Amino acid sequence: MRVEIVAVGTELLLGQIADTNSQWLGEQLAANGIASHFHQHVGDNHERIVLAFRTALARSDALIVCGGLGPTQDDITRAAIAEIMNVPLVRDEEIVDRIRTMFNSRQREMPANNLLQADVPLGATAIDQRRGTAPGLICPLGNKVIYAVPGVPYELTEMFERAILPDLLDRVRADGATSVISSRVLKTWGASESGLAEALAERFIEMESSGSLTIAFLASGIEGIKVRLTARGDDQEHADALLDAEEAVVRAIITERLGDIIFGVDEETMEDAIAERFRARGWTLGLAESLTGGLIASRLVNVVGASQWFRGCVVSYASNVKFDLLGVDPGPVVSGSAAEQMALGARRVLGSDVGLAITGVAGPEPQDDQPPGTVFVGWAIGDVVGHAQLRLPGDRPRVRSYGAISALDLLRRTIDSGH
Amino acid sequence: MRVEIVAVGTELLLGQIADTNSQWLGEQLAANGIASHFHQHVGDNHERIVLAFRTALARSDALIVCGGLGPTQDDITRAAIAEIMNVPLVRDEEIVDRIRTMFNSRQREMPANNLLQADVPLGATAIDQRRGTAPGLICPLGNKVIYAVPGVPYELTEMFERAILPDLLDRVRADGATSVISSRVLKTWGASESGLAEALAERFIEMESSGSLTIAFLASGIEGIKVRLTARGDDQEHADALLDAEEAVVRAIITERLGDIIFGVDEETMEDAIAERFRARGWTLGLAESLTGGLIASRLVNVVGASQWFRGCVVSYASNVKFDLLGVDPGPVVSGSAAEQMALGARRVLGSDVGLAITGVAGPEPQDDQPPGTVFVGWAIGDVVGHAQLRLPGDRPRVRSYGAISALDLLRRTIDSGH
Repeated sequence: MRVEIVAVGTELLLGQIADTNSQWLGEQLAANGIASHFHQHVGDNHERIVLAFRTALARSDALIVCGGLGPTQDDITRAAIAEIMNVPLVRDEEIVDRIRTMFNSRQREMPANNLLQADVPLGATAIDQRRGTAPGLICPLGNKVIYAVPGVPYELTEMFERAILPDLLDRVRADGATSVISSRVLKTWGASESGLAEALAERFIEMESSGSLTIAFLASGIEGIKVRLTARGDDQEHADALLDAEEAVVRAIITERLGDIIFGVDEETMEDAIAERFRARGWTLGLAESLTGGLIASRLVNVVGASQWFRGCVVSYASNVKFDLLGVDPGPVVSGSAAEQMALGARRVLGSDVGLAITGVAGPEPQDDQPPGTVFVGWAIGDVVGHAQLRLPGDRPRVRSYGAISALDLLRRTIDSGH
Repeated sequence: MRVEIVAVGTELLLGQIADTNSQWLGEQLAANGIASHFHQHVGDNHERIVLAFRTALARSDALIVCGGLGPTQDDITRAAIAEIMNVPLVRDEEIVDRIRTMFNSRQREMPANNLLQADVPLGATAIDQRRGTAPGLICPLGNKVIYAVPGVPYELTEMFERAILPDLLDRVRADGATSVISSRVLKTWGASESGLAEALAERFIEMESSGSLTIAFLASGIEGIKVRLTARGDDQEHADALLDAEEAVVRAIITERLGDIIFGVDEETMEDAIAERFRARGWTLGLAESLTGGLIASRLVNVVGASQWFRGCVVSYASNVKFDLLGVDPGPVVSGSAAEQMALGARRVLGSDVGLAITGVAGPEPQDDQPPGTVFVGWAIGDVVGHAQLRLPGDRPRVRSYGAISALDLLRRTIDSGH
């Protein structure tokens, strides 16, 4: 059973709205172990919708069509399905009554074009509407099927869960398949996608040959590389057990080959990793940011309860603020000693246990004879004062974003190593 | 010339990431008057990618393929294109050199599988990579073409604008199309989409009947509502003249009906608007942020040359930092007087001409008896010290993002009104 999602609407092609429906449906199908190999977007044009449906039916067993079921002139999904089924549209009087009742209960008169929503291709079954005025459709075509749902996410999700998913699962069971797919994401910072792929190359082949496990690498931009493990099990418990075992193997390989680069699992962020460490030790943190201009602070305060351990930050963008407020020695401000003095200054001025600081050159011009991308991170933890130098790629915003997560990662590793 | 976008990646089918690339590309194609009738998503599977490409080539003239060009085992777009073109992959030594140089400049060793990225289908042209390691491809197939770009948005957007769009426009011109479509975006803060639509309803009808001008409203989330004007002219000059005239009309209507809510045009940001005003007056700015935790500062430093007018920021997340460092009177810190004292404190501590401050409740819990979404913005400009109270909707990150842009907009309006 392979399901194809076809999202209908010219606004999708023009990029005026994001297609969150295909993403949500994809997630639901995967969670229920139903394969989906293709998605399509098509505009509000009869011939092209028909073509998209024929294409999808040629390569998939079921279609979920989102959108084009409303009451206006550009809602033409019903007619396209009728053409594919080679049947006429028949007005369903029960649906007419339901729509009329709905308008009455809202004390509004029903515009006549709402009746279009009661047209059903002969042989199809309507899915009654509970959150909007447009019903959905289940349309059999031999041993294949087209499901049609409104494009409004609030209506779509309810109809999918109530009527489409149960019908799909019945068909899957009739096919004799029962497996569940589950995924887990390990988040890393500091390794390249290709470096990770090389470290895991042998394991990759073993997993592929297992038939029940797959691995993929997602370069998600400024948040590092994600390693996604996916398992197919007989049920949720089995899939989770496969994932637990595989996570242990993959963690061991990564840690041995590339060091302590895994900072979180699934939705955990780098700031969550920092928060966990400060909460566990009862420490407070103060920052001094130059290069990143407040970006690190603004990430940390996203963690609920940050006020328990995060004191604040001095964004010392002008050099004089570094000298006068943070007590940095006059001289070049892009250096390891400036970063260390900023960390000490932040700790003193903000009254925190730990100080973390970052200074560097975002570009496009060099500063203190250092090229863009030169970054120094300094820290002060108890008696330990240290710094690291980095060379970061990219333009201004990118150097800054990399700098922010790199500084937090250095703090994480320094704390974990017992500094 | 009809362009089909094919986004490659199993993570798209599984709903693990949103397909922002197709949306962005759809917007760019529409803005340039290029038709796009279909999009597809397909997973990292050779046979299915080939099938998706064949399907797209049967109904479209050009394909833009996003993703699957990286260095790992699941990056198989190159091989699929080679199969469609019926040619071998050939390693391009120039690309090998460029990738090697890139790794050297970052003082990292190049893992061997990066060389896969230098494989080019015979007869295709590589688009050199400037932001990542994967080059793009331009692959001719008779009078049709496949463009391939990396799936990382930061790499994709640059490559599309530099190499693909010009090539596409050349092909459109060779097809004999002569009209030019040009757009301009007016960026507003503080009005609702329906409020703007209502103010411009009459003009909307006049524009529709003109045949050469259209207007659209884009609710782009936390950056306000964009009003996009699009003109179709005989050439660029004609289209620009139509836009100039229409911008003047629309500006006058918006300003009369809704006030001074337009803060920028096209790519101009709120921080650009602030930078322009400080540079023109030779003033410097110092910030105190509590609610937003450094978000305002991190926006301001994105403007090139910010160091000329931006001194820095005190992120006073803990109340004691407000009292001890900024000199706020002990007591409730979510209040108008606290916001004003923070602005004065920031100006004093950071040695700036102007002080701007923000305090408030991000949630989920109330603070100082104020519900989440309560925000106070304070300012100190010369002898004028003032504040404004806001009620902002949404969850923690949203209250914070709205707070940041609202504070900058209040500063902009206060300066413009001669404070």
